[in-house]
Amino acid sequence: MKLSLKALHYNPVRNIECTIFAGVKILDMALLTVGSVAFDAIETPFGKTDKIIGGAGTYIAIAASFYNNEQNIVSVVGEDFPQEMLDQLSARKVNLQGLQIKAGEKTFFWSGRYHNDMNSRDTLVTELNVLEHFDPIIPTSYQGVDYLMLGNLSPQVQKSVIERLETRPKLIAMDTMNFWMDIAMEALKETISMVDLLIINDEEARQLSGEYSLVKASKIIREMGPKYLIIKKGEHGALLFHNNKMFYAPALPLEEVFDPTGAGDTFAGGFMGYIASTDDTSFENMKRAIINGSALASFCVEEFGTTRLMNITKKDLQERIEEFVALTNFEMEQVIG
Amino acid sequence: MKLSLKALHYNPVRNIECTIFAGVKILDMALLTVGSVAFDAIETPFGKTDKIIGGAGTYIAIAASFYNNEQNIVSVVGEDFPQEMLDQLSARKVNLQGLQIKAGEKTFFWSGRYHNDMNSRDTLVTELNVLEHFDPIIPTSYQGVDYLMLGNLSPQVQKSVIERLETRPKLIAMDTMNFWMDIAMEALKETISMVDLLIINDEEARQLSGEYSLVKASKIIREMGPKYLIIKKGEHGALLFHNNKMFYAPALPLEEVFDPTGAGDTFAGGFMGYIASTDDTSFENMKRAIINGSALASFCVEEFGTTRLMNITKKDLQERIEEFVALTNFEMEQVIG
Repeated sequence: MKLSLKALHYNPVRNIECTIFAGVKILDMALLTVGSVAFDAIETPFGKTDKIIGGAGTYIAIAASFYNNEQNIVSVVGEDFPQEMLDQLSARKVNLQGLQIKAGEKTFFWSGRYHNDMNSRDTLVTELNVLEHFDPIIPTSYQGVDYLMLGNLSPQVQKSVIERLETRPKLIAMDTMNFWMDIAMEALKETISMVDLLIINDEEARQLSGEYSLVKASKIIREMGPKYLIIKKGEHGALLFHNNKMFYAPALPLEEVFDPTGAGDTFAGGFMGYIASTDDTSFENMKRAIINGSALASFCVEEFGTTRLMNITKKDLQERIEEFVALTNFEMEQVIG
Repeated sequence: MKLSLKALHYNPVRNIECTIFAGVKILDMALLTVGSVAFDAIETPFGKTDKIIGGAGTYIAIAASFYNNEQNIVSVVGEDFPQEMLDQLSARKVNLQGLQIKAGEKTFFWSGRYHNDMNSRDTLVTELNVLEHFDPIIPTSYQGVDYLMLGNLSPQVQKSVIERLETRPKLIAMDTMNFWMDIAMEALKETISMVDLLIINDEEARQLSGEYSLVKASKIIREMGPKYLIIKKGEHGALLFHNNKMFYAPALPLEEVFDPTGAGDTFAGGFMGYIASTDDTSFENMKRAIINGSALASFCVEEFGTTRLMNITKKDLQERIEEFVALTNFEMEQVIG
């Protein structure tokens, strides 16, 4: 295995910190993540947690921290959020300048219970708290970011982030959920029209498009604006659509899915972390980014919350990516006679 | 693309007809298919059919006919079965010596209605007719077959076929369904213990093993006897398990699934047709066989019954296999720095 030369493009606009890896200088691209940093309480058939750290922004930032990027986050927490977790994000080189800490307010809290098949869940509690009036302020130092990942938030908040960036990032990716389709479809479609890549799951793709067939759904959704679409199918993998091209990446079959919370955000964070670190938005490189996102997501579900992600090494990730290669690789030299 | 050299092994025991392909002699291995040849009546959200030709044995034989094998079938029909269809199977070089035609009796008939998601169906009518007392007689000329595909039938019938073969085939593959798990689990497990490869769907794997996780289920099922296990996941692809190895092949995402009837049998027929034609039961070759089976199954669902399969060419199949390669192929040259 060797490093792709694509990672070596030089961006003359920004003053970029360099990393020495395997004797080669790698330029750090800057990734901006906008997403919730929150508390979760989770019940699965395997057990339940008290309030633990969660939130789309948290999972995205942790996943993206496995790659060599400048990482910036825009989010909001209350004064009840533990400094220890912020320190851990800082230690992973996540720039927290855009993380607002609201005195006298409480952090967003979500509680849910997974069904036995782990593919569906009931929301038990949603306390918006600081998210209710969240104004995503972009620090001046964040301007000029190369890549933008919009985690699941209201489409209005997502839109205002795009509008507040003075230069358009090379790739804007966006997650959303059925909740916004139910209550704010028009605003959602407007934001979707502004992004390059939409990352949603199969049920959301069906609801957004009104089509059951994911191939048909993908066409309708891409007519809404995004040139790229990723449809996540949970344990069944993920599909990438662009023009007339399709790529199907499997999920790694696991003995046990312990807690699916955050798997989709981890996937997105791994995807965008890889894209930013390689600074390559080609279809071929997006395939590799999907494998990276899938590998990180496969760790995420092995323990509650962020526990597993916080404890794996880059070597663990490397080995799991090799498992994905072994899982999907085949040589087809065939003429049907 | 070039022909695998593995196809050129010579079997000195049998007197084998040779085919000239691309200037190379390819030896025909013999495949025996045991399975129903039947009538179906199908309702889907797209329409409904009168009685049309169906049956696991029919789909398996048609799918396997795309490869260079000697094909033999053991089955039974009533006198109401159309000679035209038998002629079509003969034209595809399916040896019908083992197909019993029962005077004064009626062919097996199944009728079903698919739900909107096409993943579940209700059985409306099952008339066993000639299948009720089916005795699978093996013609002497079938003895010595290299490969055996046991389509879904009662485990007792499947077992008696294995016992009636004087020499054990190189690979015995078997399909079954939840119906036999409900009413004849012990007999089913006995037959399963006698085969090399079990091909079932995800729900059946869960019912047979009592485990929801397919990875765990695969271990339990392989402890029952089969060294190889394929779990079909419909539109989500198929998994192959052997020792500590896994392979995940996607299904081709389709604009429309018109009629899923026979897709699983077509998959199995394509798989075993490819295995027999290459005479190679290695894990690597089974991967290729799965891609072939998946490609044929992706045609099967495009029209009612066997219609589409009967109208595609080897070139169509070749092109679809190339679509599978494009769908799944990625280059991963990566060190996470």
